[in-house]
Amino acid sequence: MTGAGETDVGQAMYELASSLFPICRSLTGQGVRDTLDVLAQTVELQRRAVATGTPLFDWVVPPEWTIRDAFIKAPDGKRVLDFSASNLHVVGYSMPIRRLIDLAELKRHVFTLPDQPDLIPYRTSYYGRTWGFCMSHTKLMSLPDAVYEVCIDSELKDGQLDYGEYIHRGRTEDEILLTTHICHPSLANDNCSGLALLAMLANAMRGRDTRYTYRFLFAPGTLGPLAWLSANEDRVGRVKHGMAVSCVGDGGGPTYKRSRRDNAVIDRVMTHILTGEGEQARSVPFSPYGYDERQFCSPGFDMPFGLFQNSAFGTFPEYHTSADNLDFIRPEHLARSYRIVTDAIDILEEDWIPISLNPKGEPQLGRRGLYASVGGPSSGGHSTMPMLWVLNLADGRHSLIDMAERSGLPFSQIIEAARRLREHDLLRPG
Amino acid sequence: MTGAGETDVGQAMYELASSLFPICRSLTGQGVRDTLDVLAQTVELQRRAVATGTPLFDWVVPPEWTIRDAFIKAPDGKRVLDFSASNLHVVGYSMPIRRLIDLAELKRHVFTLPDQPDLIPYRTSYYGRTWGFCMSHTKLMSLPDAVYEVCIDSELKDGQLDYGEYIHRGRTEDEILLTTHICHPSLANDNCSGLALLAMLANAMRGRDTRYTYRFLFAPGTLGPLAWLSANEDRVGRVKHGMAVSCVGDGGGPTYKRSRRDNAVIDRVMTHILTGEGEQARSVPFSPYGYDERQFCSPGFDMPFGLFQNSAFGTFPEYHTSADNLDFIRPEHLARSYRIVTDAIDILEEDWIPISLNPKGEPQLGRRGLYASVGGPSSGGHSTMPMLWVLNLADGRHSLIDMAERSGLPFSQIIEAARRLREHDLLRPG
Amino acid sequence: MTGAGETDVGQAMYELASSLFPICRSLTGQGVRDTLDVLAQTVELQRRAVATGTPLFDWVVPPEWTIRDAFIKAPDGKRVLDFSASNLHVVGYSMPIRRLIDLAELKRHVFTLPDQPDLIPYRTSYYGRTWGFCMSHTKLMSLPDAVYEVCIDSELKDGQLDYGEYIHRGRTEDEILLTTHICHPSLANDNCSGLALLAMLANAMRGRDTRYTYRFLFAPGTLGPLAWLSANEDRVGRVKHGMAVSCVGDGGGPTYKRSRRDNAVIDRVMTHILTGEGEQARSVPFSPYGYDERQFCSPGFDMPFGLFQNSAFGTFPEYHTSADNLDFIRPEHLARSYRIVTDAIDILEEDWIPISLNPKGEPQLGRRGLYASVGGPSSGGHSTMPMLWVLNLADGRHSLIDMAERSGLPFSQIIEAARRLREHDLLRPG
Repeated sequence: MTGAGETDVGQAMYELASSLFPICRSLTGQGVRDTLDVLAQTVELQRRAVATGTPLFDWVVPPEWTIRDAFIKAPDGKRVLDFSASNLHVVGYSMPIRRLIDLAELKRHVFTLPDQPDLIPYRTSYYGRTWGFCMSHTKLMSLPDAVYEVCIDSELKDGQLDYGEYIHRGRTEDEILLTTHICHPSLANDNCSGLALLAMLANAMRGRDTRYTYRFLFAPGTLGPLAWLSANEDRVGRVKHGMAVSCVGDGGGPTYKRSRRDNAVIDRVMTHILTGEGEQARSVPFSPYGYDERQFCSPGFDMPFGLFQNSAFGTFPEYHTSADNLDFIRPEHLARSYRIVTDAIDILEEDWIPISLNPKGEPQLGRRGLYASVGGPSSGGHSTMPMLWVLNLADGRHSLIDMAERSGLPFSQIIEAARRLREHDLLRPG
Repeated sequence: MTGAGETDVGQAMYELASSLFPICRSLTGQGVRDTLDVLAQTVELQRRAVATGTPLFDWVVPPEWTIRDAFIKAPDGKRVLDFSASNLHVVGYSMPIRRLIDLAELKRHVFTLPDQPDLIPYRTSYYGRTWGFCMSHTKLMSLPDAVYEVCIDSELKDGQLDYGEYIHRGRTEDEILLTTHICHPSLANDNCSGLALLAMLANAMRGRDTRYTYRFLFAPGTLGPLAWLSANEDRVGRVKHGMAVSCVGDGGGPTYKRSRRDNAVIDRVMTHILTGEGEQARSVPFSPYGYDERQFCSPGFDMPFGLFQNSAFGTFPEYHTSADNLDFIRPEHLARSYRIVTDAIDILEEDWIPISLNPKGEPQLGRRGLYASVGGPSSGGHSTMPMLWVLNLADGRHSLIDMAERSGLPFSQIIEAARRLREHDLLRPG
Repeated sequence: MTGAGETDVGQAMYELASSLFPICRSLTGQGVRDTLDVLAQTVELQRRAVATGTPLFDWVVPPEWTIRDAFIKAPDGKRVLDFSASNLHVVGYSMPIRRLIDLAELKRHVFTLPDQPDLIPYRTSYYGRTWGFCMSHTKLMSLPDAVYEVCIDSELKDGQLDYGEYIHRGRTEDEILLTTHICHPSLANDNCSGLALLAMLANAMRGRDTRYTYRFLFAPGTLGPLAWLSANEDRVGRVKHGMAVSCVGDGGGPTYKRSRRDNAVIDRVMTHILTGEGEQARSVPFSPYGYDERQFCSPGFDMPFGLFQNSAFGTFPEYHTSADNLDFIRPEHLARSYRIVTDAIDILEEDWIPISLNPKGEPQLGRRGLYASVGGPSSGGHSTMPMLWVLNLADGRHSLIDMAERSGLPFSQIIEAARRLREHDLLRPG
């Protein structure tokens, strides 16, 4: 399904991620809208907006945050911290402030990473009604004892929560839901990578004839999924498979976090795919801390919804720091992630339940040219085994996914075997 | 629930065990009654007596055994073996004997441990109608060929089987049954330790408001449980959880032997607790050889009833020898065992099934002060994760025990999280 | 059940295999009939024949193949390959041919094993309507460039597919089906060994009073089982347990391949037996490539039918080569395989579901002389444990096989314990 070669896809994803990187995103505000504008050049997004104050289950859409400038100025007038240098410097949703404070008080408002002294941390305080800066520990330690001018030129006022949605209509109303969070500022892996992957994938779906209807959600973490869920409660039952996609540009993993159900079809499909993705690949059980999956897997919904990443969030040193930059993600890693998601889609699209038309004994593959005509051990080799497995399990109780799981053979070989067998009228769909 | 500090509890248990140690206990007789008298100083026991000849299912209460003195006297009149030196010297339930025999015949009536030549074994012959001595192999080998006077001043006559019971009434008639055997003579770990633990625990229950009714059984092995079962068949269904407690004073284990059901709630609770008790801790499957559990887990009852020990019976060299003395058990080991049993009781008492009042999406912990207000990986740390797990599994199909098992978090963190969430009206009991 | 000592049995099997070895067997033809004649000296076979052209489910009985002579003659008139030296030299079912060809064309019709240059491979082309030779790679390489006379004096004409059946009638119509393939030429392990084992076993069944009816099938691979199945569809439901037996003379394994059901009683019994057969023993999952089991385990039948071998087919270097000769199989290996199959039969024959007549509490074994009268750890030893397990699980829901599995004790100890307990009126059959 990838169409373009992996490298092209990876390069294109990398370029899209690069163009998204500089934008200062947050839970709400202009940065989110600017990001949706960029994505709209790749995929025809439907824009959604939810007004400040709107209740979303247990939550309420907060005021919209605007940030124009921020700095810490030394007595000599030099900016020792400047928002324009990195949008990580300001704690997300900081209240406006402008005054003179001494170093001791300043330190109470500055976040650093003493164990990674040269990195700037990423911090937010959406509901804390406070203000703060983030800087490298080295820089903070270098500040002389003095009176500093701190300024955060921000605003919190009624506005809206923005998100984007792309729907690809399939032959059925059964849906596959793919989501990615749009609320992080200049962090490349988390999550310009996820935005780029789903945008490219959504674009690739155009004009494709599919069984499933596909819904792509580009939305702020937590509140975005809650906004969609509260607006689409009646649709939840149609979602047969779902995944959040984030942190898909680094060289770790790949990692799939299973749904709360633990053995949903999407869980089994992704786990099956990852068995072929090398030493580092991991299928890990659900836990209620993470990204969008925590909302879709809440007990009131309990959807078949997992999380796909390369390195799992929180496990790599660059996570939520200024080191999560455009050097940290690579086109080849993005391309592999893209392929894995498309492989999953292909499997879900192509899965079916074959029923053997010759269930009694093994059909004679030889006279149909489906079997090495001169016997011997090699007859059990790659070309024949998938056909033998499909025929043996074609009792109407096994889907192709079940067959790939039981045989341990790649789904691609099972689907191909089933196709050939059906061509020869040895199978019918159940 | 321990109330007193662990060391105090351990010291008190050790002292109680020490006062029980010298008594010559057997299946029946004055030693059992003397032991119940000592225990009665700590816990208000109800005394039960079953007359000789009473049928107990496939068994019959045997005659009561009295032992006054026993010795082996050398030609020079010196006692080469003297009951007063150790009540292990006489095979339990030995018939009375007094005559002269040569060394060869004597040896046919003496049990030793050639592999542990300096230890006296513990042996009984409840139904064998025979007589015998136990001594160290070294001592036996040192005996010159001569004619010896053997004397066992014992008596077997109609009497009774004694046992003690303590009932703590809870708010419900659902029962937790805790038993320990009272039939072993001067063996400290097996089983003065178990007697001390249950006596201290029963005492600690006084005045405590509990959901469950607690039944403590201090009874001779095999026949004691059979006596209770035959007298309480109608009550068996009320016993929701049970455990035999023995050999809880040594430094091994801890070891929990699961019930015949293998996954009863008590099995899961004890296994969960033991995961936190270090390298040596073991949860082992049921086997039909052991202590009281073999009666409660017989197919006609199949109760949710396990066995708690430190070292498993039969696995330590001191087992059933004179080396199982007051040096072999330690207050700190007794204290740990006491804590583990009380932990299990706390879990059973405090378990409940929470139902989320905000099942759709994750409730906003932040505005309730339940969530670190400045985000970041640490938000997934200890204080928050238990709450996220409880909320995620609060669908009415998971008890707190289920949640501790699935999350792998200590039950104490789960119960505390559930308490806080309920305080904030995020949960209701199912 | 073995009666004769293992060595005698092994020697007799080896001699029978040796007398079968020289015969040139194929899917059909005189070689199969000659083989059945030899077997008939050991077991009273019922001969079956299915005419060429008879449909067998998706298959049709092919023409019968006759082979009289075959050679490759050098210009000097010397036979560089001679069928009389080894019946592996001709590809099974080769069409007749007699002409002069140059070396290049000859090579296109010769199969060799470059990695095992001194061995002759075994190849067939039942449906390919082609011709070919098999020789050692060394020999082929040594042939000078020249014109050779190739001759295969064979014939394909209407005839029949032959197989033999032996039925031992038991007390019930429930059947145990044992099959082995008869279609391989001079290969000792694959499958003179299997033919010898089942012939000896069938012979040993004569006059034995059994619960099950036993059916032994000596038939060509694939078509033989299909012929039996198509003729006995109504009987399939009576087959409670089945196994194909082949390659049972080498020193590897033993290996048992489980049925498609994976946990059929025969699967559990064979797996249990193999746990006692040393390091190399393996119970492996079903796969649809192999021998007769692939027909009996086809989805339309899905019978409880496994495959017993020593080394698994295709895993030993001698497999399907001239090295699979009479030096490759040994009497002691044959004897072990014979014992394993008879052990399985004994277990299936002797299995029953005991119900305790004293389910409440443990029966008093001591007064019945079933328990060491002087207590102590050793009482839990070998003689007592099997009885305790049987009594504990005698609730009517556990067969003796279930008990052997759960206890981890050998079935022989469980059956013996059940026998003794029943003698003492402690059990009744469920």
